[in-house]
Amino acid sequence: MKDRQISKAVIRRLPRYRRYLKELQKKGIEKISSKDLSKQIGYTASQIRQDLNNFGGFGQQGYGYSVSNLHDEIGSILGLDREYKMAIVGYGRLGQAIASYISNNEPNFHIVGIFDVKQIIQDVEFKDAQIMTCGSLRDFVRNEKVDIAVITVPTAKAQIVADTVVDAGIKGIWNLTAVDLDLPEGIAVENVHMSDSLHALVYYMQGEQ
Amino acid sequence: MKDRQISKAVIRRLPRYRRYLKELQKKGIEKISSKDLSKQIGYTASQIRQDLNNFGGFGQQGYGYSVSNLHDEIGSILGLDREYKMAIVGYGRLGQAIASYISNNEPNFHIVGIFDVKQIIQDVEFKDAQIMTCGSLRDFVRNEKVDIAVITVPTAKAQIVADTVVDAGIKGIWNLTAVDLDLPEGIAVENVHMSDSLHALVYYMQGEQ
Repeated sequence: MKDRQISKAVIRRLPRYRRYLKELQKKGIEKISSKDLSKQIGYTASQIRQDLNNFGGFGQQGYGYSVSNLHDEIGSILGLDREYKMAIVGYGRLGQAIASYISNNEPNFHIVGIFDVKQIIQDVEFKDAQIMTCGSLRDFVRNEKVDIAVITVPTAKAQIVADTVVDAGIKGIWNLTAVDLDLPEGIAVENVHMSDSLHALVYYMQGEQ
Repeated sequence: MKDRQISKAVIRRLPRYRRYLKELQKKGIEKISSKDLSKQIGYTASQIRQDLNNFGGFGQQGYGYSVSNLHDEIGSILGLDREYKMAIVGYGRLGQAIASYISNNEPNFHIVGIFDVKQIIQDVEFKDAQIMTCGSLRDFVRNEKVDIAVITVPTAKAQIVADTVVDAGIKGIWNLTAVDLDLPEGIAVENVHMSDSLHALVYYMQGEQ
């Protein structure tokens, strides 16, 4: 199933489906039609059926989707049925916010190391994570087989951090800096560019005046 | 020009164009061909020409684009030639990170108010922003004519904050919480859903194993 080429647009919608399904689960809702899911999530029912057909369906005619099955299946497609070791590189306010968010909301992601240019004191909230200076980053990622590096360092340092973790065998980079990274083939990357989002917002605000 | 319907995909690329053009400006580069811009930014040259043609072009055959003109024109299309008043609602780690980011990187956005459920002490970094409890949010947004509310409160409080600022006449909401907001027509919204981005990342990591 994972060998098939699925469009980027579909992949981007899957986490959103899963998020809505989790909300339904919390409310004790066991099944839902594509039509009702459509009302909640905002995509058309036909879009939803088409998206989920990429992965073999899951719905039954006249019954709809089982909320928990669909939630788990999407999780499994995304790879959320595994555990990931994560290192946070850059422990300023954003790094701290991300660390806190992950540890409270993402049970499959384990922060094993936290890195900063300066020696930071042990954060009581992350007692399981080693806190180190960036000089130890390469060896730590290699030795601990860290899966994901979260990069929240200042713009000017982003590429050198990326080069270091790539060299150490990282598989994925979650880039929260303002720049795009130059990465070799075979490294997965997701960017959260705050300013791009803010600038799109103000564009849409013009239409509303 | 702004009356034309421009596809969402184009709009999403504009901040990225502008970001690259700013980098070129910093390096003292005055003009660039769509081909060279393509090499930097990763879109095809034809995609770039097509995107920019939506706004009447700006390029000259055989010369390319003037970096500073194009940067400023895109800024103007996005609405970045104006000033915006911003309120940060939720002043935990993420709220602090965003406030710091905006104040250091976004000269057109002015943080005028910071709100939290608990009384927070005046942040020396944001001496121009009033720091208040959420009870004052509605009146403040209305009286100060705040343009944008940045919502970084816990998930369970996100909708009530949104309702409050909408009622007070907000024009745009930058939503950094994990939920989608139910908003009336005419309010611009941009979501930064951290988990959706992380989950897309792990999907792409599977292909890389």
